[in-house]
Amino acid sequence: MKALEDKILSEGRVLDGDVLKVDGFINQRIDVKFMNEIGKEFLKLFGDEHITKILTVEASGIGIACITAQYFDVPVVFAKKGKAKNLIADEVYSAPVASYTHGNVNDVFVDRRYIDSSDRVLIVDDFLALGNALLGLIDLAKQAGASVAGCGIVIEKAYQEGGKLLRDKGIRVESLAKIKSMKNGKIEFC
Amino acid sequence: MKALEDKILSEGRVLDGDVLKVDGFINQRIDVKFMNEIGKEFLKLFGDEHITKILTVEASGIGIACITAQYFDVPVVFAKKGKAKNLIADEVYSAPVASYTHGNVNDVFVDRRYIDSSDRVLIVDDFLALGNALLGLIDLAKQAGASVAGCGIVIEKAYQEGGKLLRDKGIRVESLAKIKSMKNGKIEFC
Repeated sequence: MKALEDKILSEGRVLDGDVLKVDGFINQRIDVKFMNEIGKEFLKLFGDEHITKILTVEASGIGIACITAQYFDVPVVFAKKGKAKNLIADEVYSAPVASYTHGNVNDVFVDRRYIDSSDRVLIVDDFLALGNALLGLIDLAKQAGASVAGCGIVIEKAYQEGGKLLRDKGIRVESLAKIKSMKNGKIEFC
Repeated sequence: MKALEDKILSEGRVLDGDVLKVDGFINQRIDVKFMNEIGKEFLKLFGDEHITKILTVEASGIGIACITAQYFDVPVVFAKKGKAKNLIADEVYSAPVASYTHGNVNDVFVDRRYIDSSDRVLIVDDFLALGNALLGLIDLAKQAGASVAGCGIVIEKAYQEGGKLLRDKGIRVESLAKIKSMKNGKIEFC
């Protein structure tokens, strides 16, 4: 998606530790108008898949999921991280997810009532690097007996192994921008 | 908002510990179509306020903020909780926020570039109870020199002190559903 690549080049920043900051339009300030273009793009890619739910994980995925869901006319379900008073253990599916950004492992949870075997889910997220979050979400969907149409990703770090890992498992992964390299702070796309 | 009260009565569940679960349509499964009605309602209330940004805090506020922002044609900024590799200390405004649900205190952060003195912000969130999250967000906005048009809340627990506390400070608070009591699991609205 050319407009996305242009926006990454003009507004993204590469930080030490292989971090690409795109929080000016995706994951802190959300450019909602641009997010609509992303939603339309996911509809082009997955519009024939009879999607019944958009599945994501808090927090950065939620905005993308909500805007995208409008084009599919389906609800969003977002998995939560960690434990909270208002999550009841035997009412949830859970899976462990390692966070590259936060350097820890969290369980992700989804209430059993919000995803079931009648669902065909599109999983969306802002980034794909090692694929841990997506593997966790796929795990949750499978526990629920739902089918997974695929993963719609805004930015894939294609030099990391997550994309290959998922595609090798037969998961359809569509990334709107694929980064080949961020060496010396210079972003190159595939 | 009658449709919201009806939805809370039909889909909400009151749990021990004064917890109202509305995660069937607001904060785990998101009924995006219904969320659009909420966005329109906030536009009716704050449409004349020359809002330049919708401000919220992760995670439950993000969906509401993104859908609402479409009606105001402005970006969303969401404050983050805790510390992460990709937040740089001297680049952020921060404020402490106690979480009723999680039973702890987190700092909330917003990057200094994403809110400034030219902004007039509408703060949105799913719940108002003690008002801690909103006070933190107002604090962030004030640190940035932005003006706060008010707070748009989906559900206010009007029997708790947050609403009065904020209104006594001169903050405009508009809550689409105001709960008077949840005694014995029975929800009554003001």
